[in-house]
Amino acid sequence: MASDENSIWDPCATMSTFLTLEEIARVSEGTPHPRIGGSTNGSGVNDSSTPVLQLLSQLRAKGYQRICMPLTTNKWKRRWSEMCLLPIQPENVEQSEKDYKEKIARTAESWRMTPGFKREEVTITRLDEAEGIVAIISEWLELDSPDDWVRHDAEIALQQELAYAAYLNIQTVILPQPRNRDHVASYARIVSSCLTRLPYISLSVRLSVYDPSAMHPSGPLPNNHPASPGPEGFMSTPTTSNANGIFPPSVVVSESDVMKQSSGGSLNATWEMWDLIRSMCDYNTRLTLTLDLSPALPTTLGVLSKWAAESVRHIYLPSTTFIANMKGYPVLPKPTQQFIRDSMIASSSSSSHQPVVILAGVRENQHSRGGEPAYSQYVRHLEKTSASVQASKKEGTVENFAQGYQDYLQAPLQPLMDNLPSVTYQTFEQDPVKYQLYEEAMYRAFKDHSADEKLVVCIAGAGRGPLVARCFNALARSATNATVIVVEKNPNAFVTLQQRQLTEWGDKVQLIFGDMRVVDVPKKADILVSELLGSFGDNELSPECLDGAMRFLKPTGISIPSSYTAHLAPLSSSKLYNEARSTKNDKSLETPYVVMFQAVNILSGTKATVDGRCGPQVQECWEFEHPRRDAVLNSRGLPFTNSHNSRSASLRFYIPHAGILHGLAGYFEAILYDEIGLSIHPHRKDQVSKDMLSWFPLFFPFREPLYLPSNSELQVSIWRLTNDKQVWYEWHAESFISMPNNARTTEDLMPLTAGTMPPSASFSSYGQPSPLIDLKELRPLDMSRLTLVSDGSSSSSGGLAYESVKIGHTSLHNPGGRSSWIGL
Amino acid sequence: MASDENSIWDPCATMSTFLTLEEIARVSEGTPHPRIGGSTNGSGVNDSSTPVLQLLSQLRAKGYQRICMPLTTNKWKRRWSEMCLLPIQPENVEQSEKDYKEKIARTAESWRMTPGFKREEVTITRLDEAEGIVAIISEWLELDSPDDWVRHDAEIALQQELAYAAYLNIQTVILPQPRNRDHVASYARIVSSCLTRLPYISLSVRLSVYDPSAMHPSGPLPNNHPASPGPEGFMSTPTTSNANGIFPPSVVVSESDVMKQSSGGSLNATWEMWDLIRSMCDYNTRLTLTLDLSPALPTTLGVLSKWAAESVRHIYLPSTTFIANMKGYPVLPKPTQQFIRDSMIASSSSSSHQPVVILAGVRENQHSRGGEPAYSQYVRHLEKTSASVQASKKEGTVENFAQGYQDYLQAPLQPLMDNLPSVTYQTFEQDPVKYQLYEEAMYRAFKDHSADEKLVVCIAGAGRGPLVARCFNALARSATNATVIVVEKNPNAFVTLQQRQLTEWGDKVQLIFGDMRVVDVPKKADILVSELLGSFGDNELSPECLDGAMRFLKPTGISIPSSYTAHLAPLSSSKLYNEARSTKNDKSLETPYVVMFQAVNILSGTKATVDGRCGPQVQECWEFEHPRRDAVLNSRGLPFTNSHNSRSASLRFYIPHAGILHGLAGYFEAILYDEIGLSIHPHRKDQVSKDMLSWFPLFFPFREPLYLPSNSELQVSIWRLTNDKQVWYEWHAESFISMPNNARTTEDLMPLTAGTMPPSASFSSYGQPSPLIDLKELRPLDMSRLTLVSDGSSSSSGGLAYESVKIGHTSLHNPGGRSSWIGL
Repeated sequence: MASDENSIWDPCATMSTFLTLEEIARVSEGTPHPRIGGSTNGSGVNDSSTPVLQLLSQLRAKGYQRICMPLTTNKWKRRWSEMCLLPIQPENVEQSEKDYKEKIARTAESWRMTPGFKREEVTITRLDEAEGIVAIISEWLELDSPDDWVRHDAEIALQQELAYAAYLNIQTVILPQPRNRDHVASYARIVSSCLTRLPYISLSVRLSVYDPSAMHPSGPLPNNHPASPGPEGFMSTPTTSNANGIFPPSVVVSESDVMKQSSGGSLNATWEMWDLIRSMCDYNTRLTLTLDLSPALPTTLGVLSKWAAESVRHIYLPSTTFIANMKGYPVLPKPTQQFIRDSMIASSSSSSHQPVVILAGVRENQHSRGGEPAYSQYVRHLEKTSASVQASKKEGTVENFAQGYQDYLQAPLQPLMDNLPSVTYQTFEQDPVKYQLYEEAMYRAFKDHSADEKLVVCIAGAGRGPLVARCFNALARSATNATVIVVEKNPNAFVTLQQRQLTEWGDKVQLIFGDMRVVDVPKKADILVSELLGSFGDNELSPECLDGAMRFLKPTGISIPSSYTAHLAPLSSSKLYNEARSTKNDKSLETPYVVMFQAVNILSGTKATVDGRCGPQVQECWEFEHPRRDAVLNSRGLPFTNSHNSRSASLRFYIPHAGILHGLAGYFEAILYDEIGLSIHPHRKDQVSKDMLSWFPLFFPFREPLYLPSNSELQVSIWRLTNDKQVWYEWHAESFISMPNNARTTEDLMPLTAGTMPPSASFSSYGQPSPLIDLKELRPLDMSRLTLVSDGSSSSSGGLAYESVKIGHTSLHNPGGRSSWIGL
Repeated sequence: MASDENSIWDPCATMSTFLTLEEIARVSEGTPHPRIGGSTNGSGVNDSSTPVLQLLSQLRAKGYQRICMPLTTNKWKRRWSEMCLLPIQPENVEQSEKDYKEKIARTAESWRMTPGFKREEVTITRLDEAEGIVAIISEWLELDSPDDWVRHDAEIALQQELAYAAYLNIQTVILPQPRNRDHVASYARIVSSCLTRLPYISLSVRLSVYDPSAMHPSGPLPNNHPASPGPEGFMSTPTTSNANGIFPPSVVVSESDVMKQSSGGSLNATWEMWDLIRSMCDYNTRLTLTLDLSPALPTTLGVLSKWAAESVRHIYLPSTTFIANMKGYPVLPKPTQQFIRDSMIASSSSSSHQPVVILAGVRENQHSRGGEPAYSQYVRHLEKTSASVQASKKEGTVENFAQGYQDYLQAPLQPLMDNLPSVTYQTFEQDPVKYQLYEEAMYRAFKDHSADEKLVVCIAGAGRGPLVARCFNALARSATNATVIVVEKNPNAFVTLQQRQLTEWGDKVQLIFGDMRVVDVPKKADILVSELLGSFGDNELSPECLDGAMRFLKPTGISIPSSYTAHLAPLSSSKLYNEARSTKNDKSLETPYVVMFQAVNILSGTKATVDGRCGPQVQECWEFEHPRRDAVLNSRGLPFTNSHNSRSASLRFYIPHAGILHGLAGYFEAILYDEIGLSIHPHRKDQVSKDMLSWFPLFFPFREPLYLPSNSELQVSIWRLTNDKQVWYEWHAESFISMPNNARTTEDLMPLTAGTMPPSASFSSYGQPSPLIDLKELRPLDMSRLTLVSDGSSSSSGGLAYESVKIGHTSLHNPGGRSSWIGL
């Protein structure tokens, strides 16, 4: 491994190599046995080095930070097989053979009573040999065998191996891959039981990234096919399973071909097994994945994106998966390159997010050029060209700004109820984009007034004054004359404002202390400017505050922002689910969080369905606009009740690939003025307000994960509710699947396959019209808009040849929203 | 109502009548207003009677125990409608009209701030008028309106009505029926919020037993059809919904016709709404159902059986649903008769299980003969002819024996770990059937030995000696000579045995004190008799105990019982789910319970599917036989480990109608000897051991309910696990739906409709062969049997034109079974 290249680059992936039994045997046979040759002290630590230690030391010198090796030898496999795979005894057996078999049965019973290894059945015996090792549990253990006895004895053997690994202080082991969909529940039960028995060790389930047999041209598989035959290059095939299904790793298959053939079911087979194991182990944080990238990947990765939401600890990459480039050096096929790039995550602090890449077979001269170093160098190259790693290394990007905040749950700010500290203002004032856009919006608004008009501008909720400064910039640029009225209710920030008035602004501003819903201003304003938006638009009570400030405006006055919308998408993330659950608070799954998403997968398809039943990937919930038309107000200009600020939305999402719904991702978009806006909508933020840092998305968790099959539909209900004193959200989801209800052929029913669009295509051409990009397509604002937005049923055109069959639901149990109140 | 008829009969259903607004108005107009005419004291209680009190008193004299009446008058409806159904204001409105509308909007805002009634807007004003009243909330409130504002104001009105009902100490109110499937989540959210706000009042959701519009001959409905148009005869139709869908109540429709047309989806529509409401209210025990039986029912009731698992508090029965018999008296159509009979439950203690029958329109002379008393007399007649009520009144039946134990969760006995008290033995010794069958089995076994042979009979686990006494009966009947050895480990029961030896048996028995796994007997036995079975067969550790007692047998000896099997069926029951949840213990959802089922519904279809993928309604898990063949034993004749007593089963059930899986029902069957057996298998118990009382079924709860759609499949895994010291069970379920995966038409895929078989047909002709009824069909016993039984995949024949798509799963989180250990 070229160390000079790494020294200028802070690598994110951990590089590991896979040590085979043959390599271990080769060195062990060459030198005297340590028990004979060296002096062993009581703790098992030897002063002289052992063959295994020498081998490990050589590999570490090559730059591998971790080493994976099998824990047991073939001798153990032989003993176990002889004891436990006894053939069923025929009736007419010779007495001597019967005696022999009974002897074996007694041996097995004796082993079951007190399971343990003999010295030559394990590869390592000393603490120092085990240090930093990831141990591979015997691959031939069939924890999901259809045979009860095989499974029973495999479970005892697994417990024996794990106990031995724990004895040697090994932190992580890789489990044999599940192979049998019909009995994977038994596998999961055993793993769950081991996690409970052994309170410290981490278990990693090896699984193929998808089941290549799903793409065999031999037509649909029978229902009880062995789910995932072992791809070549990884350990021995299991004892009793057939050894078919070796799949040439260099064949490239397009996902749409596969979809046509099996409508996604079999492609999901390995993930479906993982999902069952992870669920039955109740999302134990010591349970991770070792994702085997041996099989050739489909050209589009939609079906594989679900792995992003799972706890992938290791990526297994055998040299046979590499192809030779024109010069003969090992490189990976394009889809595999992309998958690895997408898996690379730069994190400033912990490495828990970063995968360990296990390179196997790299000392077997599979490729003519480059030798062993070429493989890890190539993986490092993929890392450096990963878009997310590059973004995180670049100053001024959200990815760079968010270092250390990925998947970290924060309670949303409540600036109305709490007075923010100066340091919080400081953080948000650093946003290079947001205030620039505010200045531009003000500039355009000033320019749209006649130049000789003396304007009144009111800045409501000025904080430490960043908008005041931008206002003066805009006034200067547009050569406009204006009175600037500044309202702020935080007494501490008001000191800063007075200081700035004294040193910067002088009598060009009038400072008014107090809540904008209560105080009066000396003059009615032409333009009211505020920055009260939260990640979901209205979740920091901008609508309620601006209701109070509308009294400051002339009848013809305008508000910056003039409107904002809330948006949702269904989200899968084992990490966020576990984080939300682990919060001490009982109500932790009933309240939304601000979070920078990382190990997540948006479950909805990128396109709206052609029949219009399901909207696009991210859908609009509702809108607020200021000033409000036709408001009924009291004598002080305030609304009687807050009823007009309640909202609801009913959204239907198309789910192309099976996944687990853990929550909803919330975003906002705002129109400041004219074509100037703010957006954290994942498909539009780069066009509207690129590199804006001030808002991470919102995460609305569900108490219970909901399984969503491929080609299903998700109906999401969300309410913004209010009483005299509080505002809160409640949310709920139901899943449906389309079932044919008449004699049409099924081919008529399957054109809904989304996810076949290349991921590089622009989303904006498919989604809802953006209020910013396609401004002219917006409907004129009217009072009936609210009803139209919230009425999900109006978009579902009936009369199609299938019916929607409900298959599940989940909701928060938060009646009255008590745990997520936002104080008014 | 004929009171002499009721005096000899202890009625179970509560009879109620429905008072209309017109009836209330008629009496109120006839007499002076109480506020004017009478003297009112401070508490609102008047010395003189009010018109409402007089009316209620008349109805009570007619025998009605409860009275349902609307809480509000039409004046309230008018005021609310004028305030809240303001049409959207067009742009070019006259100024005066605009002022008028703004005035109304102000009135509405003012009402929203402080909602309350005027005197003439409610039907009752006094505590004594409200006593024993079930109040009907304004039927025209559309809590699931598609319009946000209508819904918002309906919610405020509902809160206002509930607050008034609570003020009047009304215990139960009936809510307006949900009508709009697309917005029923909003309805559910509002109800959930009201349950939280008002901690005492019970809310009953009125729903039609099924949606009659699903059977309209006009073909499939558009997706957003109003789910449940109000049937005639029940209150006013809602303000903004259309009033179509009035369905002639006397038309009889067969369920199979309906299935053909809509494959069950729409037939489930009202239950689907209820399910969503009940789930979003988190199974609140104060939330119940008022089931409206107005629509004509299908001739077979499979699709309606799901209501049995729900909390039905009221049955609404309008006089228009009654048809005239030949003499002109009101009677009900046959399917409605059957449904009401099935709903009748005799309970010795509480009336919480028993439905309240609300008779509406019975004073409107719908029928030429009988008048008002005829309706309630007819319902009483149905009650008396209900099979379950009749059984419960008859001595010696399980139904009679189980009075008060219905749906009551008991921890299973652990007779091995605990020494039972005498009173427990006494209870079980009362079983008139079980010991008779044991005597018959022993008699046949004795007869199968030659008459001059002197037998040795060992009774292992004799308790207080009931089997010893039966053994002497059988010996006498068969004229057999035998030594009887009696083993018992309960030192207290052993005193009783000594007493009986002294007074009854003399030296014909040899008493041996101790655990049958430890003690030795003086002579090897020909016949070993034991009664160690639990509700699930092996769950009281019969296999482990008999392993220890096999040492007592001669090589040719036999065991009574010779074998037993465990059986499972998927179960729905809101009641049992809530009972298991409410147990104080944290682990209450991880341990099986003994329970006499009542408010339950078995979800699986009665037939195995034709393709063999899914088995019958109740499926066999595993078997134990004694003596065990080919056992490997130590020098004392005991097994080395308990590995051979672990078991697993993987079962697939067909689910014809949507329902919620709350747990599994467990049953056993045993062969004692020859054709003599014991069975609590619901389809076979009456043929094998009718009226046997000793065992209620087992209930294995799931932590999270699982939604199962119509035509789905349920894969259940269950394990019997063991280590040195304990035995326990773990269980898990996954749901699947069959989706077409090629070009066949859907009609090819839908022949799986079960539930069309008339419920009176014998089940034995469809299910697995009973070991007792069809003994000759049993496979010869062999060692490989265990594997065959547990391998669910062997029965799934592949190659069909659809694939099974996973749609959900649920499991207990009980790794290592810690909460359900049974001590060895």
